[in-house]
Amino acid sequence: MAKRTEVDKVPVEEGRKRVVIERVEPEVDGGRFPIKRTIGEEVVVEADIFSDGHDALSAVLLYRADSDSAWVEVPMQLLVNDRWRAAFRVTRLGRYYYSITAWIDRFQTWRRDLEKKVAAGQEVAVELLTGAQLIADAAGRASGGSAQKLRRWARSLQAQVDSEQARIDLALSDEVAALVSRYPDRGLAVTYPVDLAVVVDREKARFSSWYEMFPRSCTPEPGRHGTFRDCEAKLPYIASMGFDVLYFPPIHPIGRTNRKGKNNAPMGDSEDPGSPWAIGAEEGGHKAIHPQLGTLDDFHRLMARAREHGIEIALDMSFQCSPDHPYVAEHPEWFRWRPDGSVQYAENPPKKYQDIYPFDFETEHWQELWEELRSVVLYWIDQGVRIFRVDNPHTKPFVFWEWLLGDVKRKHPDTIFLSEAFTRPKIMYRLAKLGFTQSYTYFAWRNTKWEFVDYFTELTQTPVREYFRPSLWTNTPDILTEYLQSGGRPAFMTRLVLAATLGASYGIYGPAFELCENRPKEPGSEEYLDSEKYEIKHWDTDRPDSLKEFIARVNRIRRDNPALHSDWSLRFHTVDNDQIVCYSKQTEDLSNVIVVVVNLDYRYTQSGWVELPLETFGLNPSEPYQVHDLLSDARYAWQGRRNYVELNPQVVPAHIFRMLRPGQ
Amino acid sequence: MAKRTEVDKVPVEEGRKRVVIERVEPEVDGGRFPIKRTIGEEVVVEADIFSDGHDALSAVLLYRADSDSAWVEVPMQLLVNDRWRAAFRVTRLGRYYYSITAWIDRFQTWRRDLEKKVAAGQEVAVELLTGAQLIADAAGRASGGSAQKLRRWARSLQAQVDSEQARIDLALSDEVAALVSRYPDRGLAVTYPVDLAVVVDREKARFSSWYEMFPRSCTPEPGRHGTFRDCEAKLPYIASMGFDVLYFPPIHPIGRTNRKGKNNAPMGDSEDPGSPWAIGAEEGGHKAIHPQLGTLDDFHRLMARAREHGIEIALDMSFQCSPDHPYVAEHPEWFRWRPDGSVQYAENPPKKYQDIYPFDFETEHWQELWEELRSVVLYWIDQGVRIFRVDNPHTKPFVFWEWLLGDVKRKHPDTIFLSEAFTRPKIMYRLAKLGFTQSYTYFAWRNTKWEFVDYFTELTQTPVREYFRPSLWTNTPDILTEYLQSGGRPAFMTRLVLAATLGASYGIYGPAFELCENRPKEPGSEEYLDSEKYEIKHWDTDRPDSLKEFIARVNRIRRDNPALHSDWSLRFHTVDNDQIVCYSKQTEDLSNVIVVVVNLDYRYTQSGWVELPLETFGLNPSEPYQVHDLLSDARYAWQGRRNYVELNPQVVPAHIFRMLRPGQ
Repeated sequence: MAKRTEVDKVPVEEGRKRVVIERVEPEVDGGRFPIKRTIGEEVVVEADIFSDGHDALSAVLLYRADSDSAWVEVPMQLLVNDRWRAAFRVTRLGRYYYSITAWIDRFQTWRRDLEKKVAAGQEVAVELLTGAQLIADAAGRASGGSAQKLRRWARSLQAQVDSEQARIDLALSDEVAALVSRYPDRGLAVTYPVDLAVVVDREKARFSSWYEMFPRSCTPEPGRHGTFRDCEAKLPYIASMGFDVLYFPPIHPIGRTNRKGKNNAPMGDSEDPGSPWAIGAEEGGHKAIHPQLGTLDDFHRLMARAREHGIEIALDMSFQCSPDHPYVAEHPEWFRWRPDGSVQYAENPPKKYQDIYPFDFETEHWQELWEELRSVVLYWIDQGVRIFRVDNPHTKPFVFWEWLLGDVKRKHPDTIFLSEAFTRPKIMYRLAKLGFTQSYTYFAWRNTKWEFVDYFTELTQTPVREYFRPSLWTNTPDILTEYLQSGGRPAFMTRLVLAATLGASYGIYGPAFELCENRPKEPGSEEYLDSEKYEIKHWDTDRPDSLKEFIARVNRIRRDNPALHSDWSLRFHTVDNDQIVCYSKQTEDLSNVIVVVVNLDYRYTQSGWVELPLETFGLNPSEPYQVHDLLSDARYAWQGRRNYVELNPQVVPAHIFRMLRPGQ
Repeated sequence: MAKRTEVDKVPVEEGRKRVVIERVEPEVDGGRFPIKRTIGEEVVVEADIFSDGHDALSAVLLYRADSDSAWVEVPMQLLVNDRWRAAFRVTRLGRYYYSITAWIDRFQTWRRDLEKKVAAGQEVAVELLTGAQLIADAAGRASGGSAQKLRRWARSLQAQVDSEQARIDLALSDEVAALVSRYPDRGLAVTYPVDLAVVVDREKARFSSWYEMFPRSCTPEPGRHGTFRDCEAKLPYIASMGFDVLYFPPIHPIGRTNRKGKNNAPMGDSEDPGSPWAIGAEEGGHKAIHPQLGTLDDFHRLMARAREHGIEIALDMSFQCSPDHPYVAEHPEWFRWRPDGSVQYAENPPKKYQDIYPFDFETEHWQELWEELRSVVLYWIDQGVRIFRVDNPHTKPFVFWEWLLGDVKRKHPDTIFLSEAFTRPKIMYRLAKLGFTQSYTYFAWRNTKWEFVDYFTELTQTPVREYFRPSLWTNTPDILTEYLQSGGRPAFMTRLVLAATLGASYGIYGPAFELCENRPKEPGSEEYLDSEKYEIKHWDTDRPDSLKEFIARVNRIRRDNPALHSDWSLRFHTVDNDQIVCYSKQTEDLSNVIVVVVNLDYRYTQSGWVELPLETFGLNPSEPYQVHDLLSDARYAWQGRRNYVELNPQVVPAHIFRMLRPGQ
């Protein structure tokens, strides 16, 4: 009896199953997290599938658009070395699921072996009887005309009325194989134990051009606090540059206690507008609008006007409070209190942020806190907002984000969350896995060719790309890089081209960017002098030295060239000059191939020979071809893999070539 | 209410836990399979451990020698980039388990921040009160003298009797930190959800020298069927060559129906002894001994004698039957029957093995079949056998092996199973994961330098090494490689050195090997002419051209040099001649460093410059050092990284250098 118990540890339904399915790709952390796609994209699934012995296998990829539907099956093809592949296309927002089923195919095995035996001239009389049984079994699983046909074939193989050769021909006929394969015996089939998930987003999750702007600085006359009405007047300007997302820093009432002054002075005076990230005052908290910006109606009107210009408004989501936020009085249990009875303000010693109280996510009342924060997101979703730039998500628990983003996206799958986590790589990746749609990157601090190759190969050619969608920013109100500080206008052009072509999603913080604002608070600092975070600015966007035309051209190139709408085809190419970086993107059908060449040196003209893998672009290396520089509109006749380039940063520091095949 | 339900999807005990533990290594397929170690080895465990925010973390590696014991804890150290490490040593046979626990360390966080604030000259009065509370909390988790001490410190920090400086000094003292760290608050600790397993084997699982021999060919006079008594007489010979495992092909009664004749003739005559792998006859099956070999008592006596010579007997385990095996009549339900009433014999079309019936593992009576096969293993274990070479495991279901090996090793953790699966790589690796202790490899067919570097880097420097222990065979009764056929004696010496030094476990099939038997059945075949599989052979092991002395020397070098007892330190080194391969192995403490140089060309003398990473051997590149060729006993004074070698295959085709530091 003891022995029986031990065999019985193997479930009765498992002991005869012989197929193994492993190393399924794509798969994030064993299926713990979903992969990401946008509508219309393919999911190419591969797996190692094998069994003991020499039997033939069959395998199908299973997929469904939600967890309730029936599986759709796609036959998988054996590639090589026990690796199988199939693909499906996602066409609806939300969560798709996929898995794999495979089984020993008794009929295919028999047919393959029969072929070999016949070829070797062996006796196959018994084999034909075996085949008759297998076909009769298939008939038992079929119905109607198919079942009749199969039964007829089975009888023919068995009856020995026809000649043996005629029966062999029948047994090996494609018609028999095709019909039998429709009724396989899956009694001992194995299904991969995990239903792998795909989060399907709208296209903007993959391809978007962001413009960050402080609405309070939109006023045409200096000194006045800008309003949503002022923002409306700026929409044609932003649209003319080709941006499709307009992101506002927090639009809520700003606290007065410990309000920061100009240049982050510890105590502002009563005139200072304060930092928009010090959210909450007596006028309200995260669901309120700063009275000086306008009303909720004004906001709705602005959103509608923006839509007319092809622009979507993105809001900031900063889960933190000023000391004056109503939450502090209403929910003291959501904050950590110090022994002296004060609330623990935000700090990163020795830095102090006395105007900001973080939530205490370790509170025993975390459930109420989570619900309240979700209600903030849902409130703005109710107002029509579908894009959120989430401030410092890495200072709130991962488990909270997974719940919040999962829950919101289940109800509103068109919502996009951009993770503003400038922190250690594993934390940034974890947040992306948990559900953030897009993520800020280290792009701003990557300057050398080696750095670009290394980082963007990791982001676009490794499993990271299954869950982490990069958003490349040239600058932000917190980040004025040393490269921009030192390089001036050529550096701004270089960074724009890099961000806009390395990244299908990118953003600039303007008008500081197009006006090439690059004065740091102090040497060595990445903070802007007289930062807009602490004061109202007035920007003269009509200045003749503005980069707005250049930006408009780059965004038009992006829009017109589908190769630039995605990151996965990015490949770097050899140039014999370390100051020049060259890379390409292409559509799957090669109808659109873009080659970008950028001079990273903002001081001097640089030249070199670029080496291109013409075959992968669909070009014949022995024939001449044309490259069309979409920035300068110049066309060059090139031939062969190696061609000369020369870029003067004082003119334009980059080429964005479209590769043209003869006839294109 | 609906909202509450959704938050409640997150378990109450999870919502406040902020630490993530991921990418634990070693870990095979997400913990689905155990890693392998031998007694005395270390398990070095690494993981990515991080949380949101800026809090300090603490982490401990947990391990235990069986699933019932309490966890032992080892503090983990942060390496870099959120990667943590700790290690433990396995000292008992069986299954160890390991996991990781990590938590936000509130006290460490506070202490680190206090240090920074003090350094910045900030006001810390409230911080000291916070610290007092944290220390008092630790006192609550402690007891006895520790609790008293902690309470006293907490009072000192709070009371403001001492000067602030004195209180700061106390707060930052190592003594306080050390004692508090013994009583951490683990209320919100996170434990890795998988208990990862280690199968701990005895040393022979990692380091073993195998000799395969047909006992029926051991007779001193030609023509007679050898016996176990004859084998006894061969033990001194085998021991003198330095082997510690003697593996016999099946020793069971051999079927008569369809018995194979000489050179695999389809029908033997009545004189033919048959293939030992056609197991079972009227005299019995897998638990019986072939009457012509002797009795069970003879077998016991042989095992005892072998032990005296330091040799362990390994048996073959071939789960298949001759048509005369008692199972066929007693358990027809364990075989697949054909429509003509015959049993389906083994085949790999167009090849037929009519003398062998495979079991039908898809039988509905699989449980009885499994139990019976396990009883075979347990029977021989009861006879004292602890090493099994398993024939063709890849033709039996994976689920069966996992159950069988797991069950047997649970009861007899000193058992060693060698997987004889010469098949596709993923199947070989799967079998290793399932529990085989050692595995045959593709070594026999790897001939070029590039092939050695590629294959042995995969086996020894990738995660494969955690579960797949290579066993390198120069030849087997089925494998007489083209290299040995063409290269004669120099080729045999080359392959011996390669097998014995690339692999901590290796084997030869003798006396065919030491007598340089290399006549193939026909050109292009890897079968031996007049193969011992189908007839009784008589070997003259006293022949003067035997390699026995050379083999003895190589095995002595293996025994005396611990660097060769393991595979993980294997590294290949540059030689400017593709016909010469160079590699090294070393002990962790560098007390034993072996460098092997082999001429792969059995025809011509080859020479070249080898380039060695002297620093990794503990040698000073600017000082001369000695290399001692353990094969020729010659010593050379070398200097610098590049040194000249020249190898004449007609003399000795290899160097096995021991690297000697000055004074060694």
